Amino acid sequence: MLPAISTIPFANDMPSNPEQAAAGFDPVERGRSIVVRVRPLTRERFAPFGEVIEAGHPEQRRIVNDGTAERFHDLANIDPGPQGRAIVSIFRSRPRELPLPLVSMERHPLASQAFVPLSGRRWLVVVAPAGGPPVAEGLVAFLASGEQGVNYAPGVWHHPLIALDAPSDFLVVDRSGPGENCDETILDRPARVETVDDGGPRHGDDR
Amino acid sequence: MLPAISTIPFANDMPSNPEQAAAGFDPVERGRSIVVRVRPLTRERFAPFGEVIEAGHPEQRRIVNDGTAERFHDLANIDPGPQGRAIVSIFRSRPRELPLPLVSMERHPLASQAFVPLSGRRWLVVVAPAGGPPVAEGLVAFLASGEQGVNYAPGVWHHPLIALDAPSDFLVVDRSGPGENCDETILDRPARVETVDDGGPRHGDDR
Repeated sequence: MLPAISTIPFANDMPSNPEQAAAGFDPVERGRSIVVRVRPLTRERFAPFGEVIEAGHPEQRRIVNDGTAERFHDLANIDPGPQGRAIVSIFRSRPRELPLPLVSMERHPLASQAFVPLSGRRWLVVVAPAGGPPVAEGLVAFLASGEQGVNYAPGVWHHPLIALDAPSDFLVVDRSGPGENCDETILDRPARVETVDDGGPRHGDDR
Repeated sequence: MLPAISTIPFANDMPSNPEQAAAGFDPVERGRSIVVRVRPLTRERFAPFGEVIEAGHPEQRRIVNDGTAERFHDLANIDPGPQGRAIVSIFRSRPRELPLPLVSMERHPLASQAFVPLSGRRWLVVVAPAGGPPVAEGLVAFLASGEQGVNYAPGVWHHPLIALDAPSDFLVVDRSGPGENCDETILDRPARVETVDDGGPRHGDDR
């Protein structure tokens, strides 16, 4: 059984998140609609929301299997929550087209949820901090490569899976267990991602 | 920390597994060396050893994310064992060349271990039933596609990861926790996989 879904009331007149704004994540406002900038995903940038699941970092590397393999060890804080167990599933997602309107967000208050691309294609991660219902001005967007997964910490707001370019599979590690573990909400105002190919100075300007 | 590794004594003169032999998994003996036949991986064939992690089966399918994705739900019995927690890691494996000698096998007595290919390449699964140390005559080999992962049930003997064709990444879901969770053993006699491209009647002859 999948968990039932509860809905949080429409979030009008919520303040934006000052920490995110101070960190340079401020979106560009055009009229009443928010355009959310997309930056390349890095573990440092994603740290407020969870972990990036990727190979390559020396401190996570061990040599195993008589030298035939490297193990990049324990890459995410998988948390199945109280009385929960970690489960694996596969999401097969249709690609979304840009510009992409961002309307709803969701969170799993009891447990983490990880997505790892199986099709080797870039994808889009849109998050907002854990806490009260997210607002359009607080959205943070990352372009993940086809070799980067993410693990959302419990309670972190995130947009439903956004595949790009072609139908794509993702391995998902989340929770089975008792209790209500999915909240959905509608953003307070229109937001959208216009492009992920903006190579200008907005990208990489903070590292 | 990775778990320490213990070694089981050399397994001489062990009987072969009659259930496996009866199921048609009997290897071909050539002189003293065992040639292990390779069959395409299916969930039915793999059932004695764990689960195949793959998308596509209607009974596991749910529509999610406003119709933009299919969720193939809870595909494996992830079991982190007593006082364990499920962790995710990435294995980056060098490809092995055929013919491939099979020398050692390992098992994780406390927990399951899942491997899911991230690079879209076929790979080789070699297992033996849980229980006493495996013998060459009891080995069972499967060719997995690049869209098929497996989850080894606790205690199931398996060969260390065998990538084919090119360097390949795998997402691994296994256990972190107290206690000894890796046994290694050397097979009682030489065994090898000669080819995975044997398209003759041995393949698919039982379904």
